[in-house]
Amino acid sequence: MRFSDKITSTAALIEQSLSDYLTGTRGPVAPPEQLAGAMRYAALGGGKRLRPVLLIECAALFGVRAENALDAATALECVHCYSLVHDDLPAMDDDALRRGQATVHLAYDEATAILAGDGLLTIAFEILATPQTHSDAAVRGELILGLARAAGWAGMAGGQSLDLEAEGKTLRVEEIRRLQALKTGALIQYACVAGAILGRADGDDWSALETYGRVLGQAFQLADDLLDVTGDAGKLGKKTGKDDDAGKATLIAALGLDEAKAELERLEGEAVASLERFGSRAEILRGAARFVSRREH
Amino acid sequence: MRFSDKITSTAALIEQSLSDYLTGTRGPVAPPEQLAGAMRYAALGGGKRLRPVLLIECAALFGVRAENALDAATALECVHCYSLVHDDLPAMDDDALRRGQATVHLAYDEATAILAGDGLLTIAFEILATPQTHSDAAVRGELILGLARAAGWAGMAGGQSLDLEAEGKTLRVEEIRRLQALKTGALIQYACVAGAILGRADGDDWSALETYGRVLGQAFQLADDLLDVTGDAGKLGKKTGKDDDAGKATLIAALGLDEAKAELERLEGEAVASLERFGSRAEILRGAARFVSRREH
Repeated sequence: MRFSDKITSTAALIEQSLSDYLTGTRGPVAPPEQLAGAMRYAALGGGKRLRPVLLIECAALFGVRAENALDAATALECVHCYSLVHDDLPAMDDDALRRGQATVHLAYDEATAILAGDGLLTIAFEILATPQTHSDAAVRGELILGLARAAGWAGMAGGQSLDLEAEGKTLRVEEIRRLQALKTGALIQYACVAGAILGRADGDDWSALETYGRVLGQAFQLADDLLDVTGDAGKLGKKTGKDDDAGKATLIAALGLDEAKAELERLEGEAVASLERFGSRAEILRGAARFVSRREH
Repeated sequence: MRFSDKITSTAALIEQSLSDYLTGTRGPVAPPEQLAGAMRYAALGGGKRLRPVLLIECAALFGVRAENALDAATALECVHCYSLVHDDLPAMDDDALRRGQATVHLAYDEATAILAGDGLLTIAFEILATPQTHSDAAVRGELILGLARAAGWAGMAGGQSLDLEAEGKTLRVEEIRRLQALKTGALIQYACVAGAILGRADGDDWSALETYGRVLGQAFQLADDLLDVTGDAGKLGKKTGKDDDAGKATLIAALGLDEAKAELERLEGEAVASLERFGSRAEILRGAARFVSRREH
């Protein structure tokens, strides 16, 4: 199976799983409908679902079936969706369009968008802590600890903070790399490590997936920055040229377009190379590295 | 020991524990300093620390030492502090003063306040998932599941959403009770249930603490609403008369001042009565019920 087919079929699974969780009938208390509606609006109906497919495919290397990784993948996607809702807020990136739709604070209001993000972040941990996600409490605990670290102040939220601080400043290349490793890299790397946790991977397999996730995260961000310069707003479902308008620190500004493209190619090769020990079992993950580096949206 | 002494000594423990966690030296990656500073500003140097003391005292009923409940109590307080930061935002309650200090979005900026709240919520789950918090992964998992439910869309965040929806509307008494049970009640009840989790309480003890926590939460909110009408802004460290100005739904508006005071007295009695089975071991928790109902700030 090619990666493009795999991501499509997994996206359908994730959409269904998110929809099941976000109807609000699974917990002991029914959530208020206004908030639940905003959370569904934020999470359903779009998105590449890249992180969930990485999690599921990394777990599959160790024989974990997709349905046994689906809850963890759903939780991870909830965290990704929360980050988009908060990043789009007027006080943050002030975006009007996301996945071709009005952002949550415009479709609802700002207060509801803040709470919808909070709710999506929180439900991720609720999902991971539920015994249905994995029968072994120690595995659930590792998934939670890893996600909290990847999403929190020393991960994604910290990266967003660095990004806001950087506006209008000229960062050194290593500062940009740190920012991006936290803001985008941490959650993508976690997707791969979570697969290793579910698969009870040994140290060497674990390290290989850590490397793969780290490099893939770098490639993802660099491709994203390139698309912002060279991409098509229609295909992307969001504005282009935003980084430049906002004075954002990107590697393209620091390295130049040609060197940035060459680095992306190197990263793709490095990601593919990190999977060598898994042989043909990792074919889809190799496809993911190509997809991430060469995507047009 | 009287409750007022206990809450003072526990507050000092919690302050130290929060300070230890929020220096950012415990995790594998250092957090960006701007965000870490805002999180410390939001969490340190004030607050009654009511929820942590409830957690620690409920756990103590079962012989759990304070130092073995401290990490869970710290995590809970992080969630409480996150909720204050987000509730104070301009898009929410738009408050300028909290614990006698400028609110986080004024001391820093709005984006940093949103991220500081996100960071505090996330670190709570990181703390709870750390083996140091409890040696049994199943206990950690129960603590996490309970906290996520109490804080999330069908708990505190849901209550805040209902509260925003209610502005300018006249709610029925049962609607106000539901709103308050989610917004304030869920986290206070969780504090007590978390003590039962740490203490591995049996069904009857567990139910008694569930009842105690639920009633105490109701009393806390009613006392809070009364203070907003009759309290002293200097002692409170925040504005009074806010509910009326904002057209907020409170039980005082629905029941009248005298009936609200009578209900608070009834709730205090009910909270004390729910502790009967614990005998003299629950003296401090009885004091907590009196403290919550009769506090002046």
